[in-house]
Amino acid sequence: MLETVRWKRMNGTDLLPGKLRIIDQTKLPKELVFLELDEIGEIVAAIKRLSVRGAPAIGCAAALGLAATAQHIETDSAERFIAEVETLAEKLAASRPTAVNLFWALNRSLSHLIRCDISDVSELKRELLREALAILEEDIGMCRAIGEHGENLIAENAGILTHCNAGALATGDFGTALSPMYAAHEQGRVFTVYSDETRPLLQGSRLTAWELNRAGIDVVTICDNMAAQVMKEGKIDLVMVGSDRIAANGDAANKIGTYGLAVLAKHHGIPFYVAAPTSTIDASLAHGGLIPIEIRDPAEVGAAEGVRVYNPAFDVTPNGLISGIITENGLHRPPYHFH
Amino acid sequence: MLETVRWKRMNGTDLLPGKLRIIDQTKLPKELVFLELDEIGEIVAAIKRLSVRGAPAIGCAAALGLAATAQHIETDSAERFIAEVETLAEKLAASRPTAVNLFWALNRSLSHLIRCDISDVSELKRELLREALAILEEDIGMCRAIGEHGENLIAENAGILTHCNAGALATGDFGTALSPMYAAHEQGRVFTVYSDETRPLLQGSRLTAWELNRAGIDVVTICDNMAAQVMKEGKIDLVMVGSDRIAANGDAANKIGTYGLAVLAKHHGIPFYVAAPTSTIDASLAHGGLIPIEIRDPAEVGAAEGVRVYNPAFDVTPNGLISGIITENGLHRPPYHFH
Repeated sequence: MLETVRWKRMNGTDLLPGKLRIIDQTKLPKELVFLELDEIGEIVAAIKRLSVRGAPAIGCAAALGLAATAQHIETDSAERFIAEVETLAEKLAASRPTAVNLFWALNRSLSHLIRCDISDVSELKRELLREALAILEEDIGMCRAIGEHGENLIAENAGILTHCNAGALATGDFGTALSPMYAAHEQGRVFTVYSDETRPLLQGSRLTAWELNRAGIDVVTICDNMAAQVMKEGKIDLVMVGSDRIAANGDAANKIGTYGLAVLAKHHGIPFYVAAPTSTIDASLAHGGLIPIEIRDPAEVGAAEGVRVYNPAFDVTPNGLISGIITENGLHRPPYHFH
Repeated sequence: MLETVRWKRMNGTDLLPGKLRIIDQTKLPKELVFLELDEIGEIVAAIKRLSVRGAPAIGCAAALGLAATAQHIETDSAERFIAEVETLAEKLAASRPTAVNLFWALNRSLSHLIRCDISDVSELKRELLREALAILEEDIGMCRAIGEHGENLIAENAGILTHCNAGALATGDFGTALSPMYAAHEQGRVFTVYSDETRPLLQGSRLTAWELNRAGIDVVTICDNMAAQVMKEGKIDLVMVGSDRIAANGDAANKIGTYGLAVLAKHHGIPFYVAAPTSTIDASLAHGGLIPIEIRDPAEVGAAEGVRVYNPAFDVTPNGLISGIITENGLHRPPYHFH
């Protein structure tokens, strides 16, 4: 398994000193390069330039990154230490202002520090790291649980269409949408994954196809506009995608192009599944129309000189097009009522 | 207007000697470069690498290319000349398997050669060129007629989605799918064209957006996977695309991604129009399932090392998803019965 986000011990068995170790995803698929980081500026920069991406992976990296930078704080005062950790957390939080898991993981680490009520600073440093490792461990458990709940949807010789990257490179372990595929593969099942290249940033062809192929899973890269034809040819038995935010009624936001795939799947009578941790569910939103759609830089798309570009990064798939939502708690069928 | 395919006289007023002159579309939108060709290998290569593309433009280029290469045949025997022209035509015909206009234009030139019953070879060379120029002239007339029959579908402030390039760069003149837009623009109507970038070769962002913007028409480039979202946002009033081959029942082959757009248009209640010359209609095919789909080089898509690629260049939109087919003869409504 790819170790997208991990803690690297620098002195054998002891947890500290250590560094945040991440795969530099900007180098994929050409090179598998690991970065070992313990300086706040370089960690913020790595998140900003998408060396680590995918909501769960960003959360894990932020928590481990906070522990890695906090170990160097020189003070004997617990109060002073916590204040400095808060400053570091603010810097990390500013790296991706829209990533909910980032704030969630940082807040959880800070709350733990305050709650554990320890005056010894070196022990506080350890507590910060233990909480980060717990976040990573829970993420790994979440991935495995989604895999177990979803793997039986994949029959022998199935064709699966996926979009963007909700895989090992987006999480601490097996991924979300890709986790049922890894689980089915571990059981020796044979199937083929069609991976949309996912314009404009090509996470499908650069990341999903690369990680599945590396794991020995049969994968075929297609352009986004080939999905309908591949469905029409009978190559696809199910669609499985991740999600960035799910409303209380099951409407699910995900990478641009997902909604179109759901319409195409319905037209071809193909089941359409969303796989995501429960932390992705935002029950404060009654429906998907309340999920803001981020419009990104036109330069990502690339256009002829003087031509306008429209570059929405996400779309929302209405619950009526979703056959099932797989979380770490199980496979949810419609109608969806999350709270 | 862009002169995508023309005959270039080499000696002032006389038609011969001359060359096929085409815009090298592989260089767009960065540079507007013209190629002048009269050698069979370079013309076949230019068609194969898509320096000239778009079914009507390929037909014109093949006919003019046949005349350009045939002028160099050294023989006094009409029989021998025609046999050698047939050999050249076979080489040209093998350059692209799906575009019926290619075969149509070559057959028409050959039939004309045989039918005109001339024994003087230099006169035969002229006849071959005259027929090619007639094909080009008719293509220009065809484009204008499609524009006239289609422009009233475009209301003031309409949003139009198009895919690939069925414009001036795909024909001898105004294009097919884009011709109604040029015609409406000439009448001072204001509207916005959403141009799919059209992976893998980006004819939409490189060619369609470039040529519409150059003509002063408001155009927005989107990634192919954004079409569903743009429709959902209410930005699209109609879809207008070209076609490479139309079966007797109206099933229409066009650039990969077209079929998916037709499904999305139906889901959103948006009319979906195909614009193409009658030369695109292949009444020998009862339905679209008989249209061969060209599978192109995986390298066009680009994938991680070791990952398979599926790269169908076309798909077939069933007649039931097509609101109307615009030819030079008028707007045809379903049910379609071409012969």
